[in-house]
Amino acid sequence: MRIGILGCGRIGRVHAGSVLALPDTRLVAVADAIHESARALADETGSDARTAEEIVSADDIDAVVIATPTTTHYDLIHALASAGKAIFCEKPIDMSAARIRECIDAVNRANIPFMTGFNRRFDPNFARLQRLISEGEIGNVEIVTILSRDPSPPPHDYVRTSGGLFRDMMIHDFDMARFLLGEEPDMIHAVGSALVDPEVARLGDVDTAAVTLTTPSGRICQISNSRRATYGYDQRIEVHGAKGLLRAGNVHQNTVELATRAGYQSAPAKEFFLERYEAAYRNELESFISSVRTVTQPVPSIHDGLKAQLIADAATESWKTGRSVQI
Amino acid sequence: MRIGILGCGRIGRVHAGSVLALPDTRLVAVADAIHESARALADETGSDARTAEEIVSADDIDAVVIATPTTTHYDLIHALASAGKAIFCEKPIDMSAARIRECIDAVNRANIPFMTGFNRRFDPNFARLQRLISEGEIGNVEIVTILSRDPSPPPHDYVRTSGGLFRDMMIHDFDMARFLLGEEPDMIHAVGSALVDPEVARLGDVDTAAVTLTTPSGRICQISNSRRATYGYDQRIEVHGAKGLLRAGNVHQNTVELATRAGYQSAPAKEFFLERYEAAYRNELESFISSVRTVTQPVPSIHDGLKAQLIADAATESWKTGRSVQI
Amino acid sequence: MRIGILGCGRIGRVHAGSVLALPDTRLVAVADAIHESARALADETGSDARTAEEIVSADDIDAVVIATPTTTHYDLIHALASAGKAIFCEKPIDMSAARIRECIDAVNRANIPFMTGFNRRFDPNFARLQRLISEGEIGNVEIVTILSRDPSPPPHDYVRTSGGLFRDMMIHDFDMARFLLGEEPDMIHAVGSALVDPEVARLGDVDTAAVTLTTPSGRICQISNSRRATYGYDQRIEVHGAKGLLRAGNVHQNTVELATRAGYQSAPAKEFFLERYEAAYRNELESFISSVRTVTQPVPSIHDGLKAQLIADAATESWKTGRSVQI
Amino acid sequence: MRIGILGCGRIGRVHAGSVLALPDTRLVAVADAIHESARALADETGSDARTAEEIVSADDIDAVVIATPTTTHYDLIHALASAGKAIFCEKPIDMSAARIRECIDAVNRANIPFMTGFNRRFDPNFARLQRLISEGEIGNVEIVTILSRDPSPPPHDYVRTSGGLFRDMMIHDFDMARFLLGEEPDMIHAVGSALVDPEVARLGDVDTAAVTLTTPSGRICQISNSRRATYGYDQRIEVHGAKGLLRAGNVHQNTVELATRAGYQSAPAKEFFLERYEAAYRNELESFISSVRTVTQPVPSIHDGLKAQLIADAATESWKTGRSVQI
Repeated sequence: MRIGILGCGRIGRVHAGSVLALPDTRLVAVADAIHESARALADETGSDARTAEEIVSADDIDAVVIATPTTTHYDLIHALASAGKAIFCEKPIDMSAARIRECIDAVNRANIPFMTGFNRRFDPNFARLQRLISEGEIGNVEIVTILSRDPSPPPHDYVRTSGGLFRDMMIHDFDMARFLLGEEPDMIHAVGSALVDPEVARLGDVDTAAVTLTTPSGRICQISNSRRATYGYDQRIEVHGAKGLLRAGNVHQNTVELATRAGYQSAPAKEFFLERYEAAYRNELESFISSVRTVTQPVPSIHDGLKAQLIADAATESWKTGRSVQI
Repeated sequence: MRIGILGCGRIGRVHAGSVLALPDTRLVAVADAIHESARALADETGSDARTAEEIVSADDIDAVVIATPTTTHYDLIHALASAGKAIFCEKPIDMSAARIRECIDAVNRANIPFMTGFNRRFDPNFARLQRLISEGEIGNVEIVTILSRDPSPPPHDYVRTSGGLFRDMMIHDFDMARFLLGEEPDMIHAVGSALVDPEVARLGDVDTAAVTLTTPSGRICQISNSRRATYGYDQRIEVHGAKGLLRAGNVHQNTVELATRAGYQSAPAKEFFLERYEAAYRNELESFISSVRTVTQPVPSIHDGLKAQLIADAATESWKTGRSVQI
Repeated sequence: MRIGILGCGRIGRVHAGSVLALPDTRLVAVADAIHESARALADETGSDARTAEEIVSADDIDAVVIATPTTTHYDLIHALASAGKAIFCEKPIDMSAARIRECIDAVNRANIPFMTGFNRRFDPNFARLQRLISEGEIGNVEIVTILSRDPSPPPHDYVRTSGGLFRDMMIHDFDMARFLLGEEPDMIHAVGSALVDPEVARLGDVDTAAVTLTTPSGRICQISNSRRATYGYDQRIEVHGAKGLLRAGNVHQNTVELATRAGYQSAPAKEFFLERYEAAYRNELESFISSVRTVTQPVPSIHDGLKAQLIADAATESWKTGRSVQI
Repeated sequence: MRIGILGCGRIGRVHAGSVLALPDTRLVAVADAIHESARALADETGSDARTAEEIVSADDIDAVVIATPTTTHYDLIHALASAGKAIFCEKPIDMSAARIRECIDAVNRANIPFMTGFNRRFDPNFARLQRLISEGEIGNVEIVTILSRDPSPPPHDYVRTSGGLFRDMMIHDFDMARFLLGEEPDMIHAVGSALVDPEVARLGDVDTAAVTLTTPSGRICQISNSRRATYGYDQRIEVHGAKGLLRAGNVHQNTVELATRAGYQSAPAKEFFLERYEAAYRNELESFISSVRTVTQPVPSIHDGLKAQLIADAATESWKTGRSVQI
């Protein structure tokens, strides 16, 4: 399998590392709007630095990883689909559901494999949790609880253009809810406030939020997000079912415990998302390449990308109107 | 301090035990609609078996514990208030907020001490959690998460008359939310379904439910309830604040861990609420008696009883209408 | 069952509480060298204050709890045996194995029930651990590890007369080793030092010690003791077997966890032995009385008391000589 | 830094991976008695397949990793020392302390950097534990407890030539004891038995063993080993000090917990030593190369290799004679 990577920022570099580690897979070329970034990554990985256009039209590349800014995804997906390349695209596919639908059309017409980069499905803990559910360990799912807090808030510039917390942060949890509920949620209720940084309210966003999703059969999912957690990257999920409870706890920095007069003290959760989800990123790309190789449709698909976006849109509307919204 | 107990069922007996264990406190008399129950408890505790009326009018009793069925509370509170007795009343005070307001008037007119039996505030874990919040350990409270699942559903007869899950079960969590949020919640959104037992839907109730509360300053509380938990009585609370996270986990049956090929296995949570909250019941009555003795108003007060009931009413309305409701 | 208690100190009072809580059991009388102590406990418990002699010869007492200083045990056991009373005796029975053997003769001649107060066997956690072993959950026992640390060292006066750490503190662990190994240990090796308090060395004792026991079939038990633990009363046991591992962890003060930049902090272990072993003391006396009632020999027996003492003697010799000692 | 690797088995391949991941470090050549193994690793890593002799005398290699069978170490160390190469040597350096001393002479004469591959010092958990000790978090060290159990016993062939459990397995724990005690142990007492596999006894070895080490000032270390653990690779260390307790727990396969009627079940410990100590192997080689680069003596040094071997010899003697042995 011959791979090209578009975008040589933090995420692009992670995917490059994953490609290098996979057997029978070759990183052929990388591209970036800043050519020096592409040059540097190409040198480190023994690949070519090319332009995005060259990668789109290359004969020696089978599959392309899109790790560029969201605004560029739409055009790249159309071009790559026309060129018949398999596509791995970082989330979100686009900020507009209508435009994602156009991407779906392009992908369908070209009949190419497409994976949306919801990496958390590939976290070994969350993947195992889902597998145990699907194996019936806890019976029917009844309540899903997702607690997600980032170590620290993003810069104001990011907040201005991200589409808001529900679209840039909680979207991961919406995908996880769909992954675990075993049924599509059809109603959503959202609340939010700016408790970490009042400036966020002036920018029209929230930094603390909670959502309730329900499904037609009455399953419930509660999600809460905060842009700040002093104790590391807090990523916990639990699923209450008819026969038991499954939960995946945080990944901590180490196993050392100190016991003193003050009590028992153990390490904070891992802080940096690339470290926390290191295995998830690796497994995700492996799954994509394996799907392309075996000509099966990758999961999460482009439809999964659309559905999470639709939930994020509905969450934003619910937060703004104070009303429950049909998804 | 000379105590009378009205109601010699499960809870009345627990309170009798607490009275016996307290120094300088004497259990004078007990009463029950079934006189044999009163007789039996009186014999075990070395107290008198009397009628409720005799206890209300007794000269040798300073304070009375009401542990009778909810429908009798209203009349007993009025009679005891007229008689000038200090009152400890099991929750809920009454199913109707209007009638609770009338009880408040009676208590105010009589100027007597009154405690509402929200025992969980006196659980050593939850009490400590609240104390650490009030000492500023996690800064401003931002998100409260309450997970509460009963070991097994109540009989259908109970469901028919209990006022519904939000009033008979989640009311404890509403009181806990008020206890921990540091601000009165003013909006509520509730969802619910009958997933444990479809018959519950036909009885007009739910057995699985989730609520979001918000406060004027934007603090958020998420609560979820289930009438069934295979792994014991599941009672967990966590509070996310500006400077950190506090959580109180379950109380397990023992500390033994078995590690085998299948992994590490530890004990279920304690199952029975009287065992799980043993210390809470003891501490609660001790706090009541100490307040009466020092002539300070007991907490949780009769107003706390009313406020939790009002939230439960609003939750019920929100669940039925699908709309957020102002409290 | 009619009970008398000899010794109204800390432990005597605990046993009085246990007797009061047991059904069909009556605390008839208590005695203490300091008559006011007996008087006070008698008043609190509604029993008589008598002399030890009166209790020994009383017609209205079936079983007696010996909770007096160790030096008095020998005479009391002989007197009570002659009087045909069932005996519960706090450990150690006596500081001299030869004198314990004489007590055994007296008990055998009188054919009375006798329990040695090794309360830890009745701790719900350790009892469960042993039950799981005997049910075969981990197959044959191979390695037992016992970690035992007291919250703080005893006064020098106690050290002078206690017989030394191996006899006054580790003796509990020797009994636990016998309880769990499933085979009598026949060799011991001990080391010790005075690291907590150098004065202890001048008093001829140690405050930090470690022992290895082996059994004829090659099972191994490692024990370590310290007279000081800043983080509470540290009492942990684990048993490694052919099919798995069992361990019983500490009992903590509460379940509250605080997560901040510094990590996750939870409560110290319970500090006070009467609180840590509250259930053990209660269960122990219940077991004694149940044995007396059903005319079965109580366990741990007087022989268990002797055997632990013999191991403690051997440990002391091994520590002093630096050689392994046959038990 | 230009690296050569001798031995392309499991461990040699791990070190090759570590070299590839290090910046400014190049894997120049690999060698193996089975040339195809060298060929295969060379191809995967873009390095040369050479003979050991060629690597010893190569001009384009600065440092060499010895990952060949123990019996070859002596000659290779002498040859590499003569050639002035920096040496990283897997433990044990040699089965004979006398021959290790000759290696020390050769290394001293050549004045080359030499690291002994006690990888566990570089495990992030154990390294952090040691750092916290050295920063005074628990005051003076008093009792070190090391519990080490392999997932499954080695083949009989290995047992025949390994030098015995104390030399091939517990040697890691002896190095860890020296790493943590803060003082050289001077006395040892060892016991052992063949409980996992009786055949091991016929081969003159044990599969279950326990050791007590003491230091001149009275610090104590207890170690126990088993060749079998059903629940994963069990590697736990705890250190009791004057001011508190430090412990490093196992590394588990995932964070998922399943709660059902049977209790709470979580994942076994990681099974495979290369996975369990993945970070340790990486950090170890990074430390070696950093020492060579900065011309500081690597730690653990060749003397650390000798000292652990001397303790293993003393343990073996103590086990055979039943006597405590001076180290």
